[in-house]
Amino acid sequence: MANYLYLQIAQRIEEHIENGTYKAGEKLPSVRSVHEEQGISISTVLEAYHHLEDRGLIVAQKKSGYYVSGRRRNKEQVPSQVIPALKPESVVIDSLLETIMQERFIREVVSFSRAIPGNHLIPGKILKRNMLEVLRIDEYEVMNYTQLQGNDHLRNEIAKRSLGWGGMLTAKDICVTSGCLEAIHLALRATAQQGDIVAVESPCYYGFLEAIQGLRLQVIEIPSHAQTGIDLNYLEDVYKQYPVKACIVTPNFSNPTGSLMSESNKKELVALTTRYQVPLIEDDIYGELYFQGTRPTSLKMYDKEDWVIVCSSFSKTLAPGLRVGWVAGGRFRQSIERLKFMTNIAATTVAQLVIARLLEAGSFERHLKRMRSKLFLQMTEVQAAVEAYFPEGTSISHPQGGYVVWIELPEKVSSMELYKVALQQGIGFTPGHLFSTGMVHSHFLRLSCGSVTSEQTEQALKTLGQLAKELIANHQ
Amino acid sequence: MANYLYLQIAQRIEEHIENGTYKAGEKLPSVRSVHEEQGISISTVLEAYHHLEDRGLIVAQKKSGYYVSGRRRNKEQVPSQVIPALKPESVVIDSLLETIMQERFIREVVSFSRAIPGNHLIPGKILKRNMLEVLRIDEYEVMNYTQLQGNDHLRNEIAKRSLGWGGMLTAKDICVTSGCLEAIHLALRATAQQGDIVAVESPCYYGFLEAIQGLRLQVIEIPSHAQTGIDLNYLEDVYKQYPVKACIVTPNFSNPTGSLMSESNKKELVALTTRYQVPLIEDDIYGELYFQGTRPTSLKMYDKEDWVIVCSSFSKTLAPGLRVGWVAGGRFRQSIERLKFMTNIAATTVAQLVIARLLEAGSFERHLKRMRSKLFLQMTEVQAAVEAYFPEGTSISHPQGGYVVWIELPEKVSSMELYKVALQQGIGFTPGHLFSTGMVHSHFLRLSCGSVTSEQTEQALKTLGQLAKELIANHQ
Repeated sequence: MANYLYLQIAQRIEEHIENGTYKAGEKLPSVRSVHEEQGISISTVLEAYHHLEDRGLIVAQKKSGYYVSGRRRNKEQVPSQVIPALKPESVVIDSLLETIMQERFIREVVSFSRAIPGNHLIPGKILKRNMLEVLRIDEYEVMNYTQLQGNDHLRNEIAKRSLGWGGMLTAKDICVTSGCLEAIHLALRATAQQGDIVAVESPCYYGFLEAIQGLRLQVIEIPSHAQTGIDLNYLEDVYKQYPVKACIVTPNFSNPTGSLMSESNKKELVALTTRYQVPLIEDDIYGELYFQGTRPTSLKMYDKEDWVIVCSSFSKTLAPGLRVGWVAGGRFRQSIERLKFMTNIAATTVAQLVIARLLEAGSFERHLKRMRSKLFLQMTEVQAAVEAYFPEGTSISHPQGGYVVWIELPEKVSSMELYKVALQQGIGFTPGHLFSTGMVHSHFLRLSCGSVTSEQTEQALKTLGQLAKELIANHQ
Repeated sequence: MANYLYLQIAQRIEEHIENGTYKAGEKLPSVRSVHEEQGISISTVLEAYHHLEDRGLIVAQKKSGYYVSGRRRNKEQVPSQVIPALKPESVVIDSLLETIMQERFIREVVSFSRAIPGNHLIPGKILKRNMLEVLRIDEYEVMNYTQLQGNDHLRNEIAKRSLGWGGMLTAKDICVTSGCLEAIHLALRATAQQGDIVAVESPCYYGFLEAIQGLRLQVIEIPSHAQTGIDLNYLEDVYKQYPVKACIVTPNFSNPTGSLMSESNKKELVALTTRYQVPLIEDDIYGELYFQGTRPTSLKMYDKEDWVIVCSSFSKTLAPGLRVGWVAGGRFRQSIERLKFMTNIAATTVAQLVIARLLEAGSFERHLKRMRSKLFLQMTEVQAAVEAYFPEGTSISHPQGGYVVWIELPEKVSSMELYKVALQQGIGFTPGHLFSTGMVHSHFLRLSCGSVTSEQTEQALKTLGQLAKELIANHQ
């Protein structure tokens, strides 16, 4: 985060405003006093204040100083939690999704739709250098299969990193997959059969819904709060009523809300899991992309009886085209390894070797530090632009990591309508429709901050906000 | 084939012996007369005769010339066709397979078990050069997803090649997968649901049985002849009796027998398919690896109503570690594309780009020419050694392409027993147990010719033959 000291300061002040330490109308410490007391350069303090001013959180009074504006962001004002029907449903393939996936490639000029790193976030030079190097060392190793569970070095490095987030894995616990979605898919196949019920968060990443549909499973959606994640009381009620065979949860910076579960909730979720013996499929694909503090823990940390299946990948942290993910299957490890072999034998060798090298050399950690700062900045810019340009009453989530923000429009207008007019102007995002089997999120939308650049963000979101305002005006 | 003119000559003579043009005891044309009439160097003719002599097909009579030996190979003397039970069965995961797959990596010194190219068959330098080139051109393209169905150039090149084998595909017919097994897997998922019946050849590649087991389908095995492939009368009987949802066939150089279906049988199989409307999953992974003449046709050539799903990959022709295959889904194209996305989104980009370049530049075709010659030579050497060293009465298949030969031991001893003692000496092969849900092939074995070198073959097969003889002696 070292590159963006002003953002750290701004964030700290913002927290003080949010928790009421500084109330609307109160004067902030002068620039000079912050400089003198905290030893931060005047220009950095000014930059932080300008940033807060840009976001409408503080206002400058000429010759007097900075004051908290009336537009204090309210913690409660996050996108609301929609309660889905408490019953299992078959997922119906939404041909909409296919259309949207195809259109992305063709019509998007500015893409808030793809929750993947843009080229400015991908460490292209580092990956290239390492790929040249693995080719130089042994081109035949590159062209052959790895060991069945994946390259030993890679699995060992993943295991080492797991110590940092409470996973305590060893290389033999890990099976390399072709991306995280494949890991989830294998975990579902190892735990549930056709017709079985799987619990997911609502809203839920559409890829999971698709995978569940493809496996002809039924889904039951558990409401998930945009800040705190899955509703554990609701989940327990479901566990009491239905023979749920697995539950997929993204505890850290979930997709689409960006929610982060508290430690106590993580602990409680694993306790529920153990009590009801329902396998817990943990999607931790965003866990490394925290903006501040330390790496959030994995559910695995509390998992004494091995019911948690951890799934992740390098698609969000390095490059999606490598198609390398992994799964730690817990008590389902062996069946998952078999299913991986039955599905496509192994992941591409060159991609595995390149990632193993990056991890061994420490380049991965250095890259992550830069990436986190950049993502944080981009998300902050997206949030500021939404707050500035979207219709009055729009709610937006404030994730502490990851790629995406979740937005609720103030009126129940269809975000699909907005999607269509926006795409005509080359602006892409993901309508809320895709994140549930019902239509319960149809006035929500997801904006991904990974593929856009600062230059694009403000102008595109100004246009998008304008289109949203027009849609609401027409609606009224 | 230019490098191995002597083998071509030997093969031609062998054919004459087999079809009875030259009968046992008859004199072959003198070396000098062949030299003069056909313009072939004396040393090459001699080499051809020595080769036939080594294989026991001809004998040299001092100062007289070469004569056809009594040990004329009989076309009928191929491994026998075993009739499996005519009823659908659940596939039971054979933990044996897992053990064998793991042991391969650890204990095999000379491997006749892996039906993949050894390093001497993989065009390592060419692949490396092309990988460097795609990285040089645009490392960011390499790191990003391709289009959803796979890289456009690659699909176009695959489509172009399909003209050569009667596929008549266009780029949009093709979806790139992570290897051929994944293609088969997706085809199965698109055509059959849990509990449904799938027909396969017997013996059948264990990977298909595993995939079927993993999808909780039932299997019915159709006897397949070691030379001519699947028994169509039997198949039709099954189609009449059972609601079969799909049939997997490898018409060209099948695994494990190496059988090649005749054109008339191919035509008849597609006619059956159309008549009974049973989707036909064609595994054409070995089709490019014909030893002589022209590329055998695909079943697709006769498929007017789009019931054939063609599956293939570059694992056998270039390198398995790339994990790039493809599927032409016919009338199931769209569901297969969706299932691919649901499973793991897309195949690794760098591998797709490298293969596209090789195909565009023509390097693939040049490489295939060399590879076919080498495989033919290796297979010939393996066959000769089996004929020389295995117990009297052993039968061996004589494929016209591909990687594998199928061997039937003269007594009903367990090839698993042979496997165990052979592995202690570092020699690996695949026991017949794995190629059926029953134990009907337990005195058969598969030898793959792709990973061994000439230096290894003779000594290892001498040992293996000796072990087989001991096993039989103990059995009697």
